[in-house]
Order: sequence, then structure tokens, then C-alpha cells
Amino acid sequence: MRINHQRILNDLRELAEFGKEGQAVNRPFLSAADRASREWLLGKMREAGLEAYIDGVGNVYGRAKGVEHALLIGSHTDSVPMGGWLDGTLGVIYGLEMARSRAESEEMIPLGVDVISFADEEGAFAAGLGSRSFCGLMGEEDLLAKNADGLGLQQALDTAGYCTHAPAALNPNRYRAYLEAHIEQGPVLEAEGKRIGVVTDIVGIRRAEIQISGRADHAGTTPMGMRRDAGMALINLCHDLVQRFRRVSHQNTVWNFGRVEFEPGGAGVVPSKATLLLEYRDASEQVLSRIEGEIEAAISAVTASSQVSAKVVGTKGFPPSQMDSDLVVQFEAAAIRCNAPAKRMVSGAGHDAMVLSTRLPTAMLFVPSIGGRSHDSAEDTHEADICLGAEVLAEAIVAIADERR
Amino acid sequence: MRINHQRILNDLRELAEFGKEGQAVNRPFLSAADRASREWLLGKMREAGLEAYIDGVGNVYGRAKGVEHALLIGSHTDSVPMGGWLDGTLGVIYGLEMARSRAESEEMIPLGVDVISFADEEGAFAAGLGSRSFCGLMGEEDLLAKNADGLGLQQALDTAGYCTHAPAALNPNRYRAYLEAHIEQGPVLEAEGKRIGVVTDIVGIRRAEIQISGRADHAGTTPMGMRRDAGMALINLCHDLVQRFRRVSHQNTVWNFGRVEFEPGGAGVVPSKATLLLEYRDASEQVLSRIEGEIEAAISAVTASSQVSAKVVGTKGFPPSQMDSDLVVQFEAAAIRCNAPAKRMVSGAGHDAMVLSTRLPTAMLFVPSIGGRSHDSAEDTHEADICLGAEVLAEAIVAIADERR
Repeated sequence: MRINHQRILNDLRELAEFGKEGQAVNRPFLSAADRASREWLLGKMREAGLEAYIDGVGNVYGRAKGVEHALLIGSHTDSVPMGGWLDGTLGVIYGLEMARSRAESEEMIPLGVDVISFADEEGAFAAGLGSRSFCGLMGEEDLLAKNADGLGLQQALDTAGYCTHAPAALNPNRYRAYLEAHIEQGPVLEAEGKRIGVVTDIVGIRRAEIQISGRADHAGTTPMGMRRDAGMALINLCHDLVQRFRRVSHQNTVWNFGRVEFEPGGAGVVPSKATLLLEYRDASEQVLSRIEGEIEAAISAVTASSQVSAKVVGTKGFPPSQMDSDLVVQFEAAAIRCNAPAKRMVSGAGHDAMVLSTRLPTAMLFVPSIGGRSHDSAEDTHEADICLGAEVLAEAIVAIADERR
Repeated sequence: MRINHQRILNDLRELAEFGKEGQAVNRPFLSAADRASREWLLGKMREAGLEAYIDGVGNVYGRAKGVEHALLIGSHTDSVPMGGWLDGTLGVIYGLEMARSRAESEEMIPLGVDVISFADEEGAFAAGLGSRSFCGLMGEEDLLAKNADGLGLQQALDTAGYCTHAPAALNPNRYRAYLEAHIEQGPVLEAEGKRIGVVTDIVGIRRAEIQISGRADHAGTTPMGMRRDAGMALINLCHDLVQRFRRVSHQNTVWNFGRVEFEPGGAGVVPSKATLLLEYRDASEQVLSRIEGEIEAAISAVTASSQVSAKVVGTKGFPPSQMDSDLVVQFEAAAIRCNAPAKRMVSGAGHDAMVLSTRLPTAMLFVPSIGGRSHDSAEDTHEADICLGAEVLAEAIVAIADERR
């Protein structure tokens, strides 16, 4: 299979015009720009000889004709608000190029290449909607989701006219594997001078909101020892959590104290309420559970030592996923054949591959993000790395197909 | 001088009807309720035989007729939004009752009793506006102040019709002293079983907003060691500040971390900016300066140890004030004569007395706040304590007047 580098770059640039605002790509799922980009992609799939349609939840799905078995290659084309040009699109355009290269090759590989762009990966309405629908994991509540403008998902799908097709359902007998290429969205490959990453695991994520309640007091007239200061209790809790997390985490464990808020917020009023939105990620369910245990212990410690109450609300998350170990080895071997030995790595971000891995052998390939930037107009990858990623993916596809001969 | 307890309680209750909302008093300066209450107070002053008017900035000012020298007694009648019924009003109604009692006494004391309700003590437009205007300390910028509804002070004063009188100016030759009674607004008197507090000092207040800037990163893909986490730097800074403040503070020093905010605030985004609104109070300028030095040192420490920058913006405040030591002794002696030995204390809240103390011998008397509550609908003081406070004030007035015989 011969990859056409220029065609990949041209497609990515053309796709980036949909929702372009300055250097950013603003293409949340079912925005006018997103819908237009889906029509564009549908046309590209049909040009590539695929049997393509937009399904009832907005997945753009193109299947190779005349084959019984195939690889599914894809990712997503929606963006976060004011995001970058490569997040998701790289994996979809790679898929498109693989399907085209296969069709153009003199001796066509015996395994078809199907391409998919999953709906709403970024969660304008419901994160991972398309892949969950495809895998039969969508819940009733997903259709009740609303976007930031208060628009309901079902109404937005109706307006887009996607109701003519039923949601596509994964046929596991058709597929040998799901392969997703993606930008790293982090700084690790660049920092280590690697051009290809092979994902072994996708982290599990747990999220919790911790609310501390104390009492609003006059910050001038209430002696320090007579306060029930929710803010100070939260500062102490955060400080304690970090020490505890360090004790029970792995080298790759990450956590984030993304939002802290004090109420009522006046300079002269002792905070009556303080809230922390906390997230932590690891590839091991055991580590996640140890951290959750430390959160409970830290909350007990802070409520025992200060006159405040505390509760955890809105805990949610999803479990870690393992990539298929045979496919990981295939990607590694392909990278070596392309003279770009890969780094095995854990994906700290969630991907559609996480959902697909519950139903199919799944693997992910990373290319470096310049400066680690993503979800931002600065998101970029060197053209040479974009081209190299496609070469490695093509190498792996040929090798996987060869196994079946 | 014979104090009429029932008249004091009746006046306080009548005044509390202006702006009453449930159990709260909602009477910010120049609100309709506030303006009506000023007219009511003006009438009460005239009934008491005072030569009274509302001046050009809204001070309600009543002077004893036929005297060359007087005591000035007062406080304020405006409230914080949804505040309590005694904050400020206690000192004004005490003043009114002192003027009435003097006029009714068989042998009138040779020192007049003037009464004043200072405009906008609570700062709906500009905190301490009335007392600063009265003392010649108002700035041009005060008249440009706007309230929470965006209404300009000058326009609001015009609408109220207060422009017929020029702002009253303190005549220091007329006054022997300024005396202000007030609820404590804190829990100390109640906790120590004292019914009268005599203020020796009013704290100075310094306020600073500390802004930390880092970099927004994906909280899944960016390893902990490669982040520039403004939020975590702020947590560490806050924790460090507390240890430092403890080392350099007095027993009565207070500080408050009233507002903390992280931006952009998403669970999965490393905070790029974190802000702390910090306030600290002490009666000693030296202590305040030592704390300010510790803030600078803590900021240097956190920026040296993490990849963030930090700056202090919007520092402001006012210096500590000392009450007149002779008047403090007079108040203490009066409390003993009323069988209620007083507690000497520092006022942790600011008061008009702070401004007046720059121009006149000034003293303050506190009565207990039930549960320490204030700036809140729960603000209350036992009736017996309200009556006792008036007795102590009257005792002190007679003794101060006697000094002049």
C-alpha cells in the first residue's frame, strides 16, 4: 500500500477550514461547521469507493465493498470549543487514506478498510456518544443531553436530518480490529525525542466534587480560634491530599485540582462553603481505588480537626482500558520497520478506542504534539510526523492482513 | 440624666421597620428604605429639640441649641444588604436618647449632646462616606462611586434631594469628644460572660489580591512534573502563608482567605490562573507590616519552587486607630458604677469612630452580640444588654460633663 502524504495533508487542511476561527478550529458536534464537515467527509468516503452514510446519531461510517472481513479505522472530527486542527481528525483522515491506498494498490490486501468518524467524542452533548451508540452502550439519558446553548440532542439530530438512518451497530464478526491514530496531546514524545507512541492502556478517570460547609463569620470580629472556616479547611484538605496521593500513586498517576471556589467570596467574610472539583487518572483500577480511599481518609481527618462538615458529591468516571497486546506488538514492529522505534505509553486522555476496546481488539498509535499543546489553537504536529504516523499505520495494516493469508 | 429604656427599644424597633424583609433589615445607603429612615430620624431629632438637617452627603445631623460645647454621639443607620437591626442603629438611637434625657433632666448638664447618623458607613457607594466628608477626608473619587446597581453617588444624592444643604463640616472647637456605641459583631463578650466592652483600638486592615499565572494543560496527558499548575501553587502558597502568619502575629491578629478562584475551572484542565483575595487585621502597624513582608517572602518561595509567576494587585487598607485613653477610663469607670465591669478590647471591625479619631478624642462602647452574629438577619442583642449599654453611656456622659464644671 502506497501512502499519498500530500493527500493526507491536503485533507487535514481542508477539514480545518470548517469552523476555522483565527488559528482555532471551533467545531462542536452538530454546530453548523460540524454538520458541514460531516457532509464533506461523507463525500470523501464515497470518492474513496466506500459505502458510506451518516447514521442516526451522527456517526459518519464508510464500509469497504465486497469484503467479508475488515479493519475499522477512525476517530472523530468534532472539536472542543476553539480547539485545534488535529485532535480526532488525524485518525479519521488516516483511515480515509488507508481505504484509498488499499483500493489503489495493485494487489489489494484481503482485509477491507472501513472508516468511521464517531459522533460527539468531545461531549458537546454527551461525550463518546457515537462510539457508545455503535457499541450498544448508549443510555436513554444520552438522548436527553443538552449542549451549552440548552439545545437538546434529539432535536439537534432531527434538525441535522440524521434521522433517515438508524444508528449503526457494530458487527463484531466483520472486524479483525479497531485502530485509532491520534495526536498525543501531551509533551512526553517530544521530550523524549520519540516520533511514534504505541498505547498500551488508556487510563481510568475518577472525578469527585468535595463540598466543605462551615459558617460565614465577620472576618474582623471573629477570633481565629472561634471560626468554622470552610475555605481554610479546604486549603488544608488539598495540601493533605497531595501528600497522600504521592504515597499511593504510580509514576504515571496524575491528578488535578481543576476548580476551587469559596462562598460567599467577600474579603471580610469567613468562607461558609468551599468546593473542590478533583480528578485523578491511572491505568490501574487498584491505584484509583487507593486514591479514593485516601480522599475519604483526608476528609475524615479534616472534619475531625476543624469545625466543618464535608461531603463528596457527584463522583463519576470510567475504568481503565487495556489495548490488545498482539496489536501493540504489530504497531511496535511496524514502527521499527519505518526506522522510528516507538515508545510504549499510557494514554492519559480518553478516546473512542476506550469504548471500542470493550467489543473489539483495539490499539492506538500516537504522533507527537508540538509543545504538548492540544484543545487549543496552538495544537500542531510536524508534517513529517503526520506522514510518518500514516506510514506506520499502513505498515501495521499490511502485516495484520498478512496474518490472515 | 434618666434613661427611658422603653423609648430606646421602641425607636430601634420602629427604625427596623424601614427595609424590613423577613427577619432581615435591607437598607443600603440611599435605597428608598434608607431615605425614608433618614426622614424619620430627622423628625425624631427635631422632636428631641435638636436643630437638625440632612446634609449634602446624607448625614443626618442634629445639634443641641444654646450651647457652645457638646459631645457628638452617633453611628450609622444604613445597613449591609439583608443585614441586621442593630448594626449602627444602636449608637444613633442611644445618641437620640441621650439628647432627650439631657433635655428632660431637671439640672441640665452643661455640655450639649449632638447626634449624627453618618452616611454610607457600610459602603453601598463608598464606605465611611459620611464620616469622611464630616472630617474633611472625602476624596473627589468618592463622588464618582457607583452602587451595585450601577447608580452613581452624585445622581443618587440629587434624586434624594439632599443637595439643599452643603455637607456638614466638623467644628472641632465645639466638641469635647465623639462617642460611638455599637454591637460587638463578634462572639468574644458573650464567650467571656461580659456585658460591656470598651474599645482601646480599632484594627488596621490590609487587603491584597494575589494572582498566580501558570499554563493550562490537559490534566490527563501532561505528567505531574511537566505542569505549570497555578492552582497547586496557590494551595501551597496558602498553606505556607498560614505557617508564616502564625510566626509573626499577635494573639488578636486575624486573617481571612475570603476568595479563591481557579481558571479556567474545568475538571480536566490544569489551572492556568489562580487568585486569592486575602485580608488581615491588627491594631499594630508593625504587625501588619511584618505580615506584608511574609506575603512577599511566601510569593518569592512559591515562584522559586514552581514554574509559575505571581503578583500582588490591588493592595489597599487603612491604618489602626487608637481610642482616647482618658475616655476609655471614663467608660470603664461608668461600667463599674453600673455593676457591669467592662472588657477592654480591640475592635476587629471598622467604624466611623476610626475616622473621627483623627480629629476628636474618640471612644467606643460595645454591647454583646448573641452568638456573635452580625451582617445577618440573626443579628441580635438581649434587651437587658441594650438597656445596660445606654445606662453606661449616660453615666460616662455625665462624668465627662462634670469634668468641665
